[in-house]
Amino acid sequence: MNKYGLHGKLQATAGNGDKLAAILLQAAQLVSTAKGCLLYLVSQDQETPDGVWVTEVWDSKEDHDNSLQVAGVKELIGQAMPLLAGRPEKGQVLEVLGGAGLPD
Amino acid sequence: MNKYGLHGKLQATAGNGDKLAAILLQAAQLVSTAKGCLLYLVSQDQETPDGVWVTEVWDSKEDHDNSLQVAGVKELIGQAMPLLAGRPEKGQVLEVLGGAGLPD
Repeated sequence: MNKYGLHGKLQATAGNGDKLAAILLQAAQLVSTAKGCLLYLVSQDQETPDGVWVTEVWDSKEDHDNSLQVAGVKELIGQAMPLLAGRPEKGQVLEVLGGAGLPD
Repeated sequence: MNKYGLHGKLQATAGNGDKLAAILLQAAQLVSTAKGCLLYLVSQDQETPDGVWVTEVWDSKEDHDNSLQVAGVKELIGQAMPLLAGRPEKGQVLEVLGGAGLPD
């Protein structure tokens, strides 16, 4: 199927992981109906306190890039930024070959 | 929702990434109907030739562990092992908090 995947960690400052995760879960809701969004998961890192992973699958990189224009997303990014401990690292870019569990 | 997530890379020996991915895609089909399997994706690493990522979400760690008993899975593991460049690294364990795109 060859979809566009991203897996990246956002590290919140001490004690702010839950707040960051809550913002990202709001972002998930906003973009879930955007064109080409197949998956947008928010996870707590089991080994790093206040580390939050976002795992995304999109039909294409273009669909992902367009999602940054979805109404409300920039505001959520603005809320998240002050919670971060430094700049986000570049996430992993994955070419999703297939598997099970994505919407048809 | 708090599901059990895993994200780990298997590095194939030079030129064997496609073969490894094909085996893992068969494994995805086998476990897709196992109890508690919500997601099982196979992806090509964009930066490392012959590096293949498996991204899984399960209702619980127990459901994941039981999936290793699904008929045919051990045979596929046996086919995959000789293709690997060394022991698999320990994958990331994630507590999936929520998001969009998983089956209800």
